[in-house]
Amino acid sequence: MTIQRTLHHFPLDPASRQVRLALGEKRLPFNEAQERYWERRPSFLELNPSGMTPVLVETDGEGRTVICESRAILEHLNETAPEPDLVGRDPAERAETRRLLQWFDRKFDYEVNAFLLHEKMEKQMLGLGAPGLANLRAGREGLRAHLGYIERLLQERDWLNGRRLSLADFAAAANLSVIDYFGDVPWREFSGVRTWYMKLKSRPCFRPLLADRWPGLAPAAHYDDLDF
Amino acid sequence: MTIQRTLHHFPLDPASRQVRLALGEKRLPFNEAQERYWERRPSFLELNPSGMTPVLVETDGEGRTVICESRAILEHLNETAPEPDLVGRDPAERAETRRLLQWFDRKFDYEVNAFLLHEKMEKQMLGLGAPGLANLRAGREGLRAHLGYIERLLQERDWLNGRRLSLADFAAAANLSVIDYFGDVPWREFSGVRTWYMKLKSRPCFRPLLADRWPGLAPAAHYDDLDF
Repeated sequence: MTIQRTLHHFPLDPASRQVRLALGEKRLPFNEAQERYWERRPSFLELNPSGMTPVLVETDGEGRTVICESRAILEHLNETAPEPDLVGRDPAERAETRRLLQWFDRKFDYEVNAFLLHEKMEKQMLGLGAPGLANLRAGREGLRAHLGYIERLLQERDWLNGRRLSLADFAAAANLSVIDYFGDVPWREFSGVRTWYMKLKSRPCFRPLLADRWPGLAPAAHYDDLDF
Repeated sequence: MTIQRTLHHFPLDPASRQVRLALGEKRLPFNEAQERYWERRPSFLELNPSGMTPVLVETDGEGRTVICESRAILEHLNETAPEPDLVGRDPAERAETRRLLQWFDRKFDYEVNAFLLHEKMEKQMLGLGAPGLANLRAGREGLRAHLGYIERLLQERDWLNGRRLSLADFAAAANLSVIDYFGDVPWREFSGVRTWYMKLKSRPCFRPLLADRWPGLAPAAHYDDLDF
């Protein structure tokens, strides 16, 4: 039976982007409903009481399933559409993928996004004024530390969890791609990360992300350039 | 082949407690290594570069698998020791369990733990002085909102994800149990939550948590009382 999918997402939300990449890589077509989550629309809060994107709604002949939050959606997609597998083939590989998912969901989010994206994106959307310099500096320092960690992993690995593309790569790339939209990734200092990101950027699943434009926030000049 | 398990955890860490509950419910024996994660010991950072508890180390005849971060460990345990299942039987139930896991990992953590546990636990461990009243108030307000949400769920459900005990109950109970250690849960105002917590508290998997005592931080008088 055909499943109809609608993804409620915000284009510059790293969690939403992870799901778009996974859907693209698994070649699962879906409708898009863009959600300005900070407006906290009642009908969206009915779908997801946390008010956060992404939310995936699947409909088939038997009814509707609402899947809220990126981790739940990513595990769901890998369970219900297992090819290509994006978690890992054995317990150790699966554990490593999920360790890195958590790394980006929490550590990267606390140490980088909470500063950089808050100042550059959320403040603009919420009309809270100009970016604060101290926070920008803290976010950029956090970002350098994380890029250094990814660079070290990639010295011994083809993809982040080991030898195969996984959700760990999508988590890292989704987060970096939003920061790259604002031109804040110092690619030249991290050549291993840059090469890995170029590989990801040229995959078909990445194309929709490179086409994102948010009104009033133009991306950095190299944002959709495959050879940056 | 027998698997030897060692759990590196901190007794009052909600994420560590979720894993202890799951191991207990699945009747998987394990050795304990208590980790004062805030000391950032180099040998622990080698196990988990994020420096966070919990970390599960499994050894069998073939080698050692290190599984870091609660979500990775919980999914791993449910995949490798599937009985009793703690995620859900069908995609909708599994999605609901994981939605609630994310709810407690992020929303509850941001809105309650970041205030209450920071003031009552982390400040004491790090020698940062007395709890700040404004933060305590914000944490208690957040806690009431979350208890109200759990109460509403339980008006229509036996367990948090629906009809069966799952990791969602363990996530909620693990978080509430740490706050209850400090005597900050207003149980009398939320009778549905209290009844549900009493059911959980009397399960064998909960016993080790009720026996936890951290030096210099005595628990509230009713903490290990099954009829509180």
